Amino acid sequence: MEHHLDPRFLLALAAALVAAKLLGELSERLGQPAVLGELLAGVLLGPSVLGLVPLSGGIFLLAEIGVILLLFEVGLETDLRSFARLGASALTVAVVGVVTPFALGFLAVRIFSIGGGSTELALFMGAAMTATSVGITARVFADLRRLHTDEAKTIIGAAVIDDVLGLIILGVVAAVLGGDGEFSAGTLLIITAKAVGFLVVVVAVGHVLAPYFFRFVRFLKVEGSFVVGSFVFAIAVGLAAEHFAGLEPIVGAFAAGLVAGQTSFADRIEAELRPISFLFVPIFFLFIGSRVDVVALSDPQVLLAGGIISFLAIVGKLVAGLGVLSKGVSRRVVGVGMVPRGEVGLIFAALGAGELSAVVGAGENAIVVLMVVVTTLLAPLILNRMLRNEPLDDERAAEDRTVVSMGKILDSPVIGSAEQDASKRDATED
Amino acid sequence: MEHHLDPRFLLALAAALVAAKLLGELSERLGQPAVLGELLAGVLLGPSVLGLVPLSGGIFLLAEIGVILLLFEVGLETDLRSFARLGASALTVAVVGVVTPFALGFLAVRIFSIGGGSTELALFMGAAMTATSVGITARVFADLRRLHTDEAKTIIGAAVIDDVLGLIILGVVAAVLGGDGEFSAGTLLIITAKAVGFLVVVVAVGHVLAPYFFRFVRFLKVEGSFVVGSFVFAIAVGLAAEHFAGLEPIVGAFAAGLVAGQTSFADRIEAELRPISFLFVPIFFLFIGSRVDVVALSDPQVLLAGGIISFLAIVGKLVAGLGVLSKGVSRRVVGVGMVPRGEVGLIFAALGAGELSAVVGAGENAIVVLMVVVTTLLAPLILNRMLRNEPLDDERAAEDRTVVSMGKILDSPVIGSAEQDASKRDATED
Repeated sequence: MEHHLDPRFLLALAAALVAAKLLGELSERLGQPAVLGELLAGVLLGPSVLGLVPLSGGIFLLAEIGVILLLFEVGLETDLRSFARLGASALTVAVVGVVTPFALGFLAVRIFSIGGGSTELALFMGAAMTATSVGITARVFADLRRLHTDEAKTIIGAAVIDDVLGLIILGVVAAVLGGDGEFSAGTLLIITAKAVGFLVVVVAVGHVLAPYFFRFVRFLKVEGSFVVGSFVFAIAVGLAAEHFAGLEPIVGAFAAGLVAGQTSFADRIEAELRPISFLFVPIFFLFIGSRVDVVALSDPQVLLAGGIISFLAIVGKLVAGLGVLSKGVSRRVVGVGMVPRGEVGLIFAALGAGELSAVVGAGENAIVVLMVVVTTLLAPLILNRMLRNEPLDDERAAEDRTVVSMGKILDSPVIGSAEQDASKRDATED
Repeated sequence: MEHHLDPRFLLALAAALVAAKLLGELSERLGQPAVLGELLAGVLLGPSVLGLVPLSGGIFLLAEIGVILLLFEVGLETDLRSFARLGASALTVAVVGVVTPFALGFLAVRIFSIGGGSTELALFMGAAMTATSVGITARVFADLRRLHTDEAKTIIGAAVIDDVLGLIILGVVAAVLGGDGEFSAGTLLIITAKAVGFLVVVVAVGHVLAPYFFRFVRFLKVEGSFVVGSFVFAIAVGLAAEHFAGLEPIVGAFAAGLVAGQTSFADRIEAELRPISFLFVPIFFLFIGSRVDVVALSDPQVLLAGGIISFLAIVGKLVAGLGVLSKGVSRRVVGVGMVPRGEVGLIFAALGAGELSAVVGAGENAIVVLMVVVTTLLAPLILNRMLRNEPLDDERAAEDRTVVSMGKILDSPVIGSAEQDASKRDATED
């Protein structure tokens, strides 16, 4: 009865889940974060290696849901106050982490005449190098049970700020290169004000309204209202972020998580969404991995230029680590944590392959993809080495283990000396 | 950053979930099964009424996952022995429930000259009327907390047998009307043998191998392995059913559930999959509702013929209730429970709109859709009235409530007098 459904989608989904779990398991057994295995599963299953599985279409939609759920859970576990405490560091790290890679990328294209060395391409390459993947970093720290650290909090904060900065850069680049002409300091100010304003309004208004929403869905008699309500809450705020502020939905989902995390329903939301995340989140990382075009990378010219750009992309973010202002926060760890470009870098690659294809050739776009992949795969490996050599705070790590994991981060509800007690209290409540 | 994702899909998903839950809630508050509200939410959101939401594409894929999960859960709760005990009744009900509607539909097209009254159309209409929706019936009985009843078990069994019969009918109709020429008693025998053989092999081999599979996924260290493994198990057997036996994937998923339900992991599988079902299953019912083309039904000719066909479709399945052989099982309840055509009826409508459009005009196809909708919406209403007047076995109903619900059915692990004790034991274990 083949009129009813599309077996290729189900087959792709099943194969993707099996590959993600088996390579994730292998990765963990080798002492690496599971996310590394999921990314490699994507490379393997993707069109350029095995090509076994069509990873576009339906799988892409599930990946989309996955990354939204991931960021919602990250927000859920984030305490606004500890976020504020590390805000200055996060802001400096974000700004340095945008300016440095941009400058390095721009200069590299001009100096080494990459792809002809035009100013337009230099602008595009620089912009593509500014991205930070909050998704990858959050998962790596979660896999390593270090989500409670100030380093993790600083990186997540910087990555969110980076998304707002990325919005501005994307606006500038699209206006300059796309030749829409509509580009002025006033436009930029409006873009920024909308993005920042949206986040402030969501947190402020959400703080008041969210408890009513979750009380309402709990009050409904029909089964599954609570978990479906939580899911819809994350998606709705994500959509609003895109529609009203031009932000990525994942930033909206993160804000939704921040707000939901302040309510007394946080634990229940997290527990009920967990199995759903287990299903969707690996699909996202697998999808990212599948974007790697191994064939385009076989050109030695592309490979050389890609090597240079990747190296500079790593250096640029390591420099960002120097932006850390708070005492006792490792600049090295923060720098490495900012390195992965992940999903955000791929947005630039999609732009290069699409709207800006007049400026960005296939070879140059392959360079961007290589840079995204190298930074995304290297960061978990390096972080793993660095963090393994640091003493593990057993109690806090145990807490990471017991609570969620996948999207869990910034778990301490209060700052300073009360922090330790509060996290103990949380642990016993669970 | 609109290059990254498709907000329409997320918007459609959020709107669909909100509408399904709110109308489901309204339905329950009015004393009706929640599934009725979900179906109506689909009619409302679908293209012919509000048209607010594009319910094809991604939503269809989620609906597909939903019905597979639903049938897997139904299988999980089904005890093979009680299934066997009621097998003779189920077989008779299924056969009578196929022959009677077929005869009535065939004769109606010829006698009333519906759509010209050709023999081909008569064959098609008769065939379309033979379907039984196991999904709708299972949900209705679950919503009414009557999944433990022998009536529910008989209907589910008959619906599964009906799917095998439907396969044969579809093969005949496609061969006769599609004019492939490749049609013989031998072909039919092979189709039947493959379908029955597949189910027997899955249950026999699965009984041995399933415990190893679930022990393996439990043994994996990487998070979410168990729930993802269970999910993949359902999908994989569903795909195998389609690939190797030409069965619908939902029948394979049901068989997978039967097998998994025999293992000691049944409770854990059910608990971990529950939030995922809560998300996907309503999407399926909503999708079914959205297929209603209100505009095509505005033609009085179509409406009259549709009324006749719908009436006969109901009568045909009520007659099937007379096939009940076991004592103490209500023939009326079984008859009404067989009425909804749901997703299986829609497969015929899709065939009529596609491959067989030379034989089946737009008006005649609208008749089929009307018949599917009327039977699907009426059955929950009537069952609700009938079952409310019967005394509720509080203890068993309470068990239905505590365990799952959505896909829970046939919960008794042993037959006869031991049944009550065993279900008590299960309840305390939970």
